[in-house]
Amino acid sequence: MVEDNVVFVGSKEVMSYVLAVTTQFDKGSDEVVLKARGNAISRAVDTAEIVRNRFLQNVDILDITTKTEELEDEEGTSNVSAISITLGEK
Amino acid sequence: MVEDNVVFVGSKEVMSYVLAVTTQFDKGSDEVVLKARGNAISRAVDTAEIVRNRFLQNVDILDITTKTEELEDEEGTSNVSAISITLGEK
Repeated sequence: MVEDNVVFVGSKEVMSYVLAVTTQFDKGSDEVVLKARGNAISRAVDTAEIVRNRFLQNVDILDITTKTEELEDEEGTSNVSAISITLGEK
Repeated sequence: MVEDNVVFVGSKEVMSYVLAVTTQFDKGSDEVVLKARGNAISRAVDTAEIVRNRFLQNVDILDITTKTEELEDEEGTSNVSAISITLGEK
């Protein structure tokens, strides 16, 4: 779920991603990036909002970007939206 | 669903919001803002990505902001994440 400073948000409960983010900052990271695709995008936004409002008052959202990714499966390719939310010190 | 230049994204299918956005630009709007809460956040991102990639090549995402809103119901208050995505000419 965590790779360098990136936390990949999937289908677990929000608080497990909040914990992953706060752990990264505790280890000394200056920035942590939340990445999610499809329906998990809402959960990534929840994670960022909970981190900055309830856990780390000195952390804010520095940047939000979105893109479209192509997924390949047995039926061909389909498009899915993705989000990157960069958290860091204010 | 549409108020001034704001398109509120809810639980309809994505293409109805894409149509609402392109209609606003066709009417001469310089910017259109997509707003969504909770699970609809993913759909708002899908809408923005489809508009800029497939329908309006001269339009891009200018800004994305998130916030936490308080909802009141009979059981008290609960928090929900919200997103605003501003679309406009590159």
